[in-house]
Amino acid sequence: MKTILSPAAMQAESLAWRREGRRIGLAPTMGFLHEGHLSLVDRARERADVVAVSIFVNALQFGLGEDYDTYPRDAERDLALCARRGVDVVFMPSQADLYASGHSVYVEETDLSAGLCGLSRPGHFRGVTTVVAKLFHLVLPDVAVFGLKDAQQARIIERMVRDLNFPTEIVIAPIVREPDGLAMSSRNTRLSTEDRARAVCLYRSLCLAERLYAEGITEAGRIRREMRETLRAAQADTDYVATVDYRSLHPVEEIRDETLVAVAARVGGVRLIDNTVIGGAA
Amino acid sequence: MKTILSPAAMQAESLAWRREGRRIGLAPTMGFLHEGHLSLVDRARERADVVAVSIFVNALQFGLGEDYDTYPRDAERDLALCARRGVDVVFMPSQADLYASGHSVYVEETDLSAGLCGLSRPGHFRGVTTVVAKLFHLVLPDVAVFGLKDAQQARIIERMVRDLNFPTEIVIAPIVREPDGLAMSSRNTRLSTEDRARAVCLYRSLCLAERLYAEGITEAGRIRREMRETLRAAQADTDYVATVDYRSLHPVEEIRDETLVAVAARVGGVRLIDNTVIGGAA
Repeated sequence: MKTILSPAAMQAESLAWRREGRRIGLAPTMGFLHEGHLSLVDRARERADVVAVSIFVNALQFGLGEDYDTYPRDAERDLALCARRGVDVVFMPSQADLYASGHSVYVEETDLSAGLCGLSRPGHFRGVTTVVAKLFHLVLPDVAVFGLKDAQQARIIERMVRDLNFPTEIVIAPIVREPDGLAMSSRNTRLSTEDRARAVCLYRSLCLAERLYAEGITEAGRIRREMRETLRAAQADTDYVATVDYRSLHPVEEIRDETLVAVAARVGGVRLIDNTVIGGAA
Repeated sequence: MKTILSPAAMQAESLAWRREGRRIGLAPTMGFLHEGHLSLVDRARERADVVAVSIFVNALQFGLGEDYDTYPRDAERDLALCARRGVDVVFMPSQADLYASGHSVYVEETDLSAGLCGLSRPGHFRGVTTVVAKLFHLVLPDVAVFGLKDAQQARIIERMVRDLNFPTEIVIAPIVREPDGLAMSSRNTRLSTEDRARAVCLYRSLCLAERLYAEGITEAGRIRREMRETLRAAQADTDYVATVDYRSLHPVEEIRDETLVAVAARVGGVRLIDNTVIGGAA
């Protein structure tokens, strides 16, 4: 496995792969890898000849007062996990190498970014689309794999690829969960033991939504209310509980197949997100 | 010479070229080609194995009340000129094929775009960077050539390539002028005979700036005043006369080598731009 730090060296490598006709797969991450990330690697492997993982905690997508400084990092552990999983190249640029002083160009999505996490994290998705565009130009992936846990991000990246005509196929991989149902996230490591136990309330609220729907209840307002109650009972500080169309992310008041039920809440000061697609993701 | 209308077909062709290790050159245009455009083709030819010209009048970069509808178009003439100049592929997408309904992703430059044409044409450069990003993803150029007449655009595209890490070299080609000095522009064809004669005032005002500087005058305010007088005398409606640093586009009050002297004015209702770089462009 090769580790590349320099953006220029990464791009030179990718251009050579393209010339050799090798299909490139990319799993973009912010590091502190868990089984969710590694499942992206597996999906990339199925579809590509060379698999790259990028590890970069992108300051641009963190707002003031958010957890950029405390976001967990462990490069050595990440490299060992990648090597064991058969990754070909890990791209780990520095902040200074990836963003020139006087950086002034951004990629902005203006429709899907408005709601959900976009409301409480202004500028977040601009940071995401900008860094993903940069990583796509450096790694030149034929296929890039993102996790469904960040469902809104997944939709926004698909839209970016469509609207800017990137020559890249986007694959969305299902959420990987801990045994008790908590969606895997690098941020879970920041939870105290007590908060870790409470954090499963996000998953439970989604299970409740699935169960109510299975019982024939389709009124989204009622489902959201009961979900909020589940979160409140666990002392989670709810940011949003949303029922939206899986494709357009527009709110729906009647739950049906392909409704995305999404939740964001703080548990012990750590912001967590989770979601489920009613009837399963297409 | 091949003519390609479909974005998907263009991208498939470009990906095949990249796999074959052929260097791709691109000259992006809005058509109604003149010798200025064709000089871009020549520069691309020197640096690439296959030369593509894109022809697309990009509605997104025109503001309300601007000349999108009256912008001159003549596809057959353009194709004949390209064939004669040895172009390999002309890419002529339709508006509907290039912009999906519900398009919501934009590339935005936030520093260099603020002044000059950005002031009187809000949204213009967002349209330019967005369409150029799209064209770059469809044609996948190793090298793309832009004209120095749109000096601000050239700087913005260079910045976009730097900040988003496009694997593309940008070449800026010098302004090509009519025998009397008028900078070539597709819009010149919209001038009446009388206005065509008057339009040379932009070039004359730039020559005046060069002459004053050669005489030892470096006070930018005085030079701009005299230039405005030249434009007024020809009954041109001045949008701006600017003296800025060629790289940063920040205003300078003391002219020196590498100062960009830029002018925009309406002649008979047609908006024209022109510029000169003191001491010659680097």
